[in-house]
Amino acid sequence: MCGIFGIYGHKDAALLTYLGLYALQHRGEESAGIVAYDGKKVMQHKGMGLVSDLFRESAIRSLHGSIAIGHNRYSTTGSSNAKNVQPFLVGHKGAHIVIAHNGNLTNAVFLRHKLEEAGSIFQTTMDSEIIAHLLARSKGKACTESVLESLSQLEGAFSLVMMVDGVLFGARDPLGFRPLCIGKVDGAYVLASETCALDLIRAKYVRDVKPGEVVFIDKGGLRCTSLSKARVSANCIFEFIYFARPDSNIFGENVYLTRKRLGRQIAKESPVKCDIVMPVPDSGNSAALGFAEESGIQLEAGIVRNHYIGRTFIQPSQHIRDFNVRIKLNPIKDVLKGKRVVIIEDSIVRGTTTKSRVRTLREAGAKEIHMRVTCPPIISPCYYGIDFPTKRELIASNQTIKQVRDFIGLDSLEYLSLEGMLKAMSLPGGKFCTACFTGNYPVPPPKRFSKRAFEKKG
Amino acid sequence: MCGIFGIYGHKDAALLTYLGLYALQHRGEESAGIVAYDGKKVMQHKGMGLVSDLFRESAIRSLHGSIAIGHNRYSTTGSSNAKNVQPFLVGHKGAHIVIAHNGNLTNAVFLRHKLEEAGSIFQTTMDSEIIAHLLARSKGKACTESVLESLSQLEGAFSLVMMVDGVLFGARDPLGFRPLCIGKVDGAYVLASETCALDLIRAKYVRDVKPGEVVFIDKGGLRCTSLSKARVSANCIFEFIYFARPDSNIFGENVYLTRKRLGRQIAKESPVKCDIVMPVPDSGNSAALGFAEESGIQLEAGIVRNHYIGRTFIQPSQHIRDFNVRIKLNPIKDVLKGKRVVIIEDSIVRGTTTKSRVRTLREAGAKEIHMRVTCPPIISPCYYGIDFPTKRELIASNQTIKQVRDFIGLDSLEYLSLEGMLKAMSLPGGKFCTACFTGNYPVPPPKRFSKRAFEKKG
Amino acid sequence: MCGIFGIYGHKDAALLTYLGLYALQHRGEESAGIVAYDGKKVMQHKGMGLVSDLFRESAIRSLHGSIAIGHNRYSTTGSSNAKNVQPFLVGHKGAHIVIAHNGNLTNAVFLRHKLEEAGSIFQTTMDSEIIAHLLARSKGKACTESVLESLSQLEGAFSLVMMVDGVLFGARDPLGFRPLCIGKVDGAYVLASETCALDLIRAKYVRDVKPGEVVFIDKGGLRCTSLSKARVSANCIFEFIYFARPDSNIFGENVYLTRKRLGRQIAKESPVKCDIVMPVPDSGNSAALGFAEESGIQLEAGIVRNHYIGRTFIQPSQHIRDFNVRIKLNPIKDVLKGKRVVIIEDSIVRGTTTKSRVRTLREAGAKEIHMRVTCPPIISPCYYGIDFPTKRELIASNQTIKQVRDFIGLDSLEYLSLEGMLKAMSLPGGKFCTACFTGNYPVPPPKRFSKRAFEKKG
Amino acid sequence: MCGIFGIYGHKDAALLTYLGLYALQHRGEESAGIVAYDGKKVMQHKGMGLVSDLFRESAIRSLHGSIAIGHNRYSTTGSSNAKNVQPFLVGHKGAHIVIAHNGNLTNAVFLRHKLEEAGSIFQTTMDSEIIAHLLARSKGKACTESVLESLSQLEGAFSLVMMVDGVLFGARDPLGFRPLCIGKVDGAYVLASETCALDLIRAKYVRDVKPGEVVFIDKGGLRCTSLSKARVSANCIFEFIYFARPDSNIFGENVYLTRKRLGRQIAKESPVKCDIVMPVPDSGNSAALGFAEESGIQLEAGIVRNHYIGRTFIQPSQHIRDFNVRIKLNPIKDVLKGKRVVIIEDSIVRGTTTKSRVRTLREAGAKEIHMRVTCPPIISPCYYGIDFPTKRELIASNQTIKQVRDFIGLDSLEYLSLEGMLKAMSLPGGKFCTACFTGNYPVPPPKRFSKRAFEKKG
Repeated sequence: MCGIFGIYGHKDAALLTYLGLYALQHRGEESAGIVAYDGKKVMQHKGMGLVSDLFRESAIRSLHGSIAIGHNRYSTTGSSNAKNVQPFLVGHKGAHIVIAHNGNLTNAVFLRHKLEEAGSIFQTTMDSEIIAHLLARSKGKACTESVLESLSQLEGAFSLVMMVDGVLFGARDPLGFRPLCIGKVDGAYVLASETCALDLIRAKYVRDVKPGEVVFIDKGGLRCTSLSKARVSANCIFEFIYFARPDSNIFGENVYLTRKRLGRQIAKESPVKCDIVMPVPDSGNSAALGFAEESGIQLEAGIVRNHYIGRTFIQPSQHIRDFNVRIKLNPIKDVLKGKRVVIIEDSIVRGTTTKSRVRTLREAGAKEIHMRVTCPPIISPCYYGIDFPTKRELIASNQTIKQVRDFIGLDSLEYLSLEGMLKAMSLPGGKFCTACFTGNYPVPPPKRFSKRAFEKKG
Repeated sequence: MCGIFGIYGHKDAALLTYLGLYALQHRGEESAGIVAYDGKKVMQHKGMGLVSDLFRESAIRSLHGSIAIGHNRYSTTGSSNAKNVQPFLVGHKGAHIVIAHNGNLTNAVFLRHKLEEAGSIFQTTMDSEIIAHLLARSKGKACTESVLESLSQLEGAFSLVMMVDGVLFGARDPLGFRPLCIGKVDGAYVLASETCALDLIRAKYVRDVKPGEVVFIDKGGLRCTSLSKARVSANCIFEFIYFARPDSNIFGENVYLTRKRLGRQIAKESPVKCDIVMPVPDSGNSAALGFAEESGIQLEAGIVRNHYIGRTFIQPSQHIRDFNVRIKLNPIKDVLKGKRVVIIEDSIVRGTTTKSRVRTLREAGAKEIHMRVTCPPIISPCYYGIDFPTKRELIASNQTIKQVRDFIGLDSLEYLSLEGMLKAMSLPGGKFCTACFTGNYPVPPPKRFSKRAFEKKG
Repeated sequence: MCGIFGIYGHKDAALLTYLGLYALQHRGEESAGIVAYDGKKVMQHKGMGLVSDLFRESAIRSLHGSIAIGHNRYSTTGSSNAKNVQPFLVGHKGAHIVIAHNGNLTNAVFLRHKLEEAGSIFQTTMDSEIIAHLLARSKGKACTESVLESLSQLEGAFSLVMMVDGVLFGARDPLGFRPLCIGKVDGAYVLASETCALDLIRAKYVRDVKPGEVVFIDKGGLRCTSLSKARVSANCIFEFIYFARPDSNIFGENVYLTRKRLGRQIAKESPVKCDIVMPVPDSGNSAALGFAEESGIQLEAGIVRNHYIGRTFIQPSQHIRDFNVRIKLNPIKDVLKGKRVVIIEDSIVRGTTTKSRVRTLREAGAKEIHMRVTCPPIISPCYYGIDFPTKRELIASNQTIKQVRDFIGLDSLEYLSLEGMLKAMSLPGGKFCTACFTGNYPVPPPKRFSKRAFEKKG
Repeated sequence: MCGIFGIYGHKDAALLTYLGLYALQHRGEESAGIVAYDGKKVMQHKGMGLVSDLFRESAIRSLHGSIAIGHNRYSTTGSSNAKNVQPFLVGHKGAHIVIAHNGNLTNAVFLRHKLEEAGSIFQTTMDSEIIAHLLARSKGKACTESVLESLSQLEGAFSLVMMVDGVLFGARDPLGFRPLCIGKVDGAYVLASETCALDLIRAKYVRDVKPGEVVFIDKGGLRCTSLSKARVSANCIFEFIYFARPDSNIFGENVYLTRKRLGRQIAKESPVKCDIVMPVPDSGNSAALGFAEESGIQLEAGIVRNHYIGRTFIQPSQHIRDFNVRIKLNPIKDVLKGKRVVIIEDSIVRGTTTKSRVRTLREAGAKEIHMRVTCPPIISPCYYGIDFPTKRELIASNQTIKQVRDFIGLDSLEYLSLEGMLKAMSLPGGKFCTACFTGNYPVPPPKRFSKRAFEKKG
């Protein structure tokens, strides 16, 4: 996942982009960058780490101009290093191309091969560089034409914020895997992955960029065009389950309320006799509220989260993850002692973190521990931008629910059904990509997919 | 406030101290330090900033030995700079004195003056250095004797972890303002400000250090002695209201459950007709649960906290605090629109932050906003270690509740009564220091108290 | 100017490259980088600043492999920023291209324009990136063929060390403006700008790369081929006057001995009655020795250089240069008082630094101050890699020698004649480029030359 | 050795102190610090490393006030760490004590023990802290009285610059081991270890602080008093041999001219038939000039020094020193080949560096290598501030001159005689401390001297 942000026509463009990235930090903790443009020069500030650590006031002040693009990165394609920090910036024929990308191209290997055969050289391993090369080689007369010609060659998932020749572009792939919305503040247009970024800068939400749509923003305002005819869209349902911030609206719907409905739904599907219901904080908080309301079981915040640590899911290495499990959550013994507890989890990926959490609850004195998961078992990898592990590491891909229950050490374990999950969405069910739960991929996955496809060199 | 930690007789003393400081991070975000002792040499690692930023694996590994003392600092006495990072360490006659202090001495100016007259020189502005000088000048034969002689000269609030000549000491002032508990892990004794530090390192809670007690730990195990005869104690009630972690037990009682009782109590005292009840996350979370249970009003997590920022209260400068208010909390419009809301706050200090939060909720569409505060109005400064602003800046010290309500922009505002607050404690009421609510100081405050007493130089 | 270094087939390739860069530090203080190749992966370490500051032992150890290329940069083309640090490295079709360049292409703007028209995108403003694009677009079957095809399109000055597909290349432009020599150590071939780099790593000097020659080194040893038929060469004479280290042999001749001959020559051409002769340390040291020998005037080291500062000439900004003039050299009053002094300078560029030095000598008590400069007046800019200022700033381009003398504040000033300078060279006069003294450019300069040609963007 | 600097009554006090430290950098490369005083507050900036690396413009600008004291440290007493960076600063009774010390107290262990017995605690291992404690315990009414009382308890070598209560003090021990001079700039008084610091800031040399003298500078100007009656002084002769900068005047005499006389003297005492004479740059430069003049042998700069590295002698660890020997000096083969060479060295300490240099010259082709050293064999350690190794490591302490010659690999080796050395001084011979050559210590050395006396802890 990644967070992307763009703004056109605001005197504090870089500052608002910085705040936008702050709000979108949960979408990528590995690196961040801002590119600003003052009509003549582009300036950039990028680095590894969190937005709050990377940007000092002086850095923001050095990014002049009324157009800016920002990016929070959480590595999927392209390994974790400084060279791969976005936005991607190149000069071409005296103009500037700036690209911020959320998603994953499924034909990246093919496109790169073709471009190299034609004499292009690559300095990073990011999908964004491929897009820049397509733009540079485009025969389009106007830059709008070039953008359309280039984007039409892409397959897979892409929500993009780009600047070409002083024009700001926003685009989503024809199936609309990743979110991207349009806002407005002080007369300036804003593009952002989630509405929480609009809220922070007091921008008004205008609408989402539509699947397959390209919007371009210049002095004439915002205009839009289409990459392709409308098809059935495939919004990533996992954004609702886990990824997006609860205060965001994505794909037109509030995340918090959706999660509460997911909690209510599993309370209906898989009730349980317990003394207390508890979320795994904070990802299970919203669903636990829904579960408590539906079931009437008393809600307790029986696990306390240490707020000085980031989100586990995003950490790259297994070694650090294990350390974080110990340090991140602490159960309250006086709450748990002798109680029958039902825990609300958003999802189970490998199962190891969950197992370790459950062990901690047992040690704290819980008598029974039940778990309700607000999505179906994850059985297939994602090729559209979520960094799930390989099939071999996805616990539900290899074990029955009973085996998972025993592995984790639970008294009972129930997942939400596919139908139940879709029912909890307020939108018609056909809209979503549920490939990670079903293996039905709306766009064919790459033949020989490899996270580091471009790094294996002779 | 500060967090203190000590361990005696564990091969991973520095690592466990590091983890202990991690758990106690909320007690002081400004600086941190660890001193370790291997029987011959002392080693230290200190710095400004958070524990997670300061300590790398290599730093921990360089701190050899089976005794270690750690400190998280949140500046009260002694200004905010690198020189004042604790634990305080000096060599004296070939031995080492290491001191970590939580609290505030009320006779610091007097003691320092006396020591300077006798030829002592001071290199920091910390209370801890005064204690070291008293130790160095003590005529006591054994180091235990010296420690008792020195500590008996101190007035005010002190919970201490010290190492003198290879012996670990823990001590609390006779009124027991600040918490300090004893734990045991792998046969080694541990001292910590709160039990959450014991939990993280899987240490068993043994008991609290008693008010006026000095415990000393060496190869012979743990022994204890007393500074003074038992008096009525004066545990800081604000630790329960705001400061301590909800998963900790302090003064013998769980913080989370106490806060829930505070929420229940104010629901009884000051009921209100509302559609939803919401905490100010995360400090109001526990009380909001209690309030919801008691009142039957539906609990909603209608404000989302950005987890990439620390606790507002602790930030030193007003400038940064204002920035954080904007960036830290985001209301969910879809939850608030058209609703009558009651907000549960733990306390109001200056009122400016609260005012700004309430304005945000109004903008998000709330129809009515009521607030219930789970303590009485704060009217007097604390001389025992809580960094309240001056009386002039304490809003409730200068304004009626109605004025405060109007300043903040609320439809109604109610504080918990003093009696209600004490009733919600599970312990007999006489035990607590409530000076910040009543102005009744259990120990006379210093005559000309100044935060920077030692920095005004000729 | 820049320093370049390459080594093939040595187990400590990166370490020796590091030492080589250390020895070549005088050729570029702005940035440095090393790229190493272990047959599979390339690793790099680069940064702004001096070699001694940039490379720690751990950095060197992380650069595995038996092939390495290093570069010291002193910005000419391409502005002074981190992106422009060499060696330039790209991946292409699974292979690696690494380029280190000393010199300046005179057709860079033309080549870049042509490449951009064909769809290439540029991420830096360096000549090296142009060469990489030419290589990527070459139709040559073998990489040797591609290299020849690409280099034959270049005009101007280039001494290159490159690695393509695991083969190490060294090349000089057909006129041989910049030096490049071949050495051998422990059976491994070495390429370096100056022989002082060979000395430091105890490599044996083999021979110079000839003007217009391309050498390629692989498992089969060293082979060579030619870019063009032999023409009259145009070695940069300013390398002897100022740039190269005195302990180096370049273009087949020792620099120190050449400078002594330059000093002897001007002593013959422009004798002067003085009590003492003094060099401007350290660039005038060698010539002052020659002058003293020839003239019989007593040599005194009457100006002491502070060794904690680098070479003034190389510092980028005028502001810092002025500071350094004050701090760098201190005259010894007891030596100068009442004396007639002749100062030996290697060259005068703007004259401002010299003026300030002479003022200092007057203040120290010198009775008469004469200056002898060991080259003719510099009247024309260099388009082949020396970073002279514009014609307007070259003092001798705009003023007569008498005016220069008066500006600087000298009792007499004499420059070496062009004939005298060429006579002092041990090689036949026709070999050298003397464009900066004569304005006769052996290769046509670019029409609209601009140091920042590639940075003026729309 | 260390460099000390102080200034009273200048609006740019900190900036001039910074420049003074820059000029005195050769006296201590390990750490540096500046303390400034604006009449109310003291501000400091300190750190490990070179002055040019430690101080940015912003740091200098933050050091307000018209009084400043600076220190360059090169560890002798007190180990090499950040805590021991001078100037030493403490607050005492609302006033400030700032101390910069060059030299070594021979009764430091005794004084420290006495102070600890009386209850003083020590936070560093520096002599300066002892002086601060003596000041704090002094019964003197005026601060001048206290300073005299305190300094009169010190034994050994001390040149001091101190500030007490806004008065600037300069002092030298009764034998005047280390230099200290007085200057004046823009009406402000300056104190500095060497006159080269005065030159850089364009201050006029006034006079030396006399042995046993204490000068104090306040609004009333400069006054002076005496610690003790005049005795025969004992100026460190090694300052002339090696330590001081050639452009300085110390003990009333120019260093460069003195070194030239040393070179002339050994040319007379120990002539040799050679083709060329060469200095070891740069410490042998001055003496080589004198040798060449006296002997008539042709001077050649046949060894080139890499200016990107500091002075070998000062580096703390043997590992780094060995690396530097390889990287620092490069002989010019074309100068040395087949020649009989006489090398002028200032001194030989361990002999290992010299041996390695001579080996390099042989490899470069020298036919015969003779060495002349401009001082007698060093046979005894220094207890007054020069960081010689132990007697066991001093090569001349354990071997005959012939053995040394063979160890180093020379064709001949001659040292200057004690008489010859004293004759080359322009001052009467009795003034100097020559203990390192004779073992006659003007002040009794400490009984159990240890560099880390204060760090061996129980």
